[in-house]
Amino acid sequence: MSKALLASTSTLHGQEYLEYLIPELKTFFSNTEEVIFIPFARPGGISHDKYTKKASEAFNKAGITLRGIHEFDNMREAITSAKGIFTGGGNTFLLVSELYRNKLIQPLKESIQNGAAYMGTSAGTNIAGLTMQTTNDMPIVYPPSFKTLGVVPFNINPHYLDPDTNSTHKGETRETRIKEFHTINTQPVIGLREGSWILVSDNKIELKGSLSARIFKSEKLPFEIETNSDLSELN
Amino acid sequence: MSKALLASTSTLHGQEYLEYLIPELKTFFSNTEEVIFIPFARPGGISHDKYTKKASEAFNKAGITLRGIHEFDNMREAITSAKGIFTGGGNTFLLVSELYRNKLIQPLKESIQNGAAYMGTSAGTNIAGLTMQTTNDMPIVYPPSFKTLGVVPFNINPHYLDPDTNSTHKGETRETRIKEFHTINTQPVIGLREGSWILVSDNKIELKGSLSARIFKSEKLPFEIETNSDLSELN
Repeated sequence: MSKALLASTSTLHGQEYLEYLIPELKTFFSNTEEVIFIPFARPGGISHDKYTKKASEAFNKAGITLRGIHEFDNMREAITSAKGIFTGGGNTFLLVSELYRNKLIQPLKESIQNGAAYMGTSAGTNIAGLTMQTTNDMPIVYPPSFKTLGVVPFNINPHYLDPDTNSTHKGETRETRIKEFHTINTQPVIGLREGSWILVSDNKIELKGSLSARIFKSEKLPFEIETNSDLSELN
Repeated sequence: MSKALLASTSTLHGQEYLEYLIPELKTFFSNTEEVIFIPFARPGGISHDKYTKKASEAFNKAGITLRGIHEFDNMREAITSAKGIFTGGGNTFLLVSELYRNKLIQPLKESIQNGAAYMGTSAGTNIAGLTMQTTNDMPIVYPPSFKTLGVVPFNINPHYLDPDTNSTHKGETRETRIKEFHTINTQPVIGLREGSWILVSDNKIELKGSLSARIFKSEKLPFEIETNSDLSELN
């Protein structure tokens, strides 16, 4: 069974990068002291080195060493032999394009199936779903496919944002966008609010954090599920 | 020279569909009493027939008859012989996919180059740019390409939204997203606020409506341009 920690966001308002997740890291990566970092999503265009440094500083606080995947001559081998993997947020189109270009999608899938602990935030969480098609990001680059890792049997919408009932803006709400997704696609979508994460372990898929999450199913009305709910039946 | 009216949104807060644009329609489509409607973006999953009916009701107020492209046996011929074309908003990925699937991208380009008056709102405006890569929409379907019509020599971000300085949400602002676009792409982007439109005619490209627009250029700081500014040099 796969082991995954899929967080809506890396950072909560008023906190440091990954601050709220540091206690979780120690438990989640208890099987390894070295984690491979995938910096390909490049938030704000940050370089791989700088992004790895930033993520390292947070992981160090949990006693874990982080190594950027770009530092390896053989990235596929690094993924295959990794015991822990963390994919940071940024632009999902760029992340998925780079994973395909470096032929890392299949090794990543297999490594996670074989027991590597996988953690994602934002774009890194989005790619743990069946497809990246419920991302909020701009299509700044054209990836060879929208298919992603399928660590969970549904799609994820990170940074889920409830409709602002006072807004005068006429752009679509997040809920409207996900409804449009369901006019063409059938898999369920979990709208994961900032501060929530999904924990996959021991044949369970659970919602964690203090908030509820919003579930969207094709041809059904959306509904809320409470924290600690089992998401295994969501497929 | 092409003739185009490219609106950020179809609908302003508190108004009817296309209400604020009806006075413009009469002038813009003065060369024809029949306009071809492209309903492929299907906002909220609305059917082609229902969407065409909704748009027709607005156009009728300006004395113009609208016919849905889906009603024609030969869509390419309908586009080629059209004197006026209107593409409504909805999901840009779906719109672009359907245009490619029906082999309408090239006929549309040529028809506009040959003088057909082209109007777009939202997704219909986005596709008048060089690529659809500055859309705000979810990638609910995988199009064969992100390249679009290039009626204007830059990209357009419809429904442009200024950053909310009071927000505690950690998802990217629109400005951040467009900056990320510029880490990979070089063409300028115009952030077109709701109520603004671009008017292309007589070798001019002008900003219309009461608001200013925000211009993003690769490796430059974003800046504002006032309404009635000439956008011809923006490339």
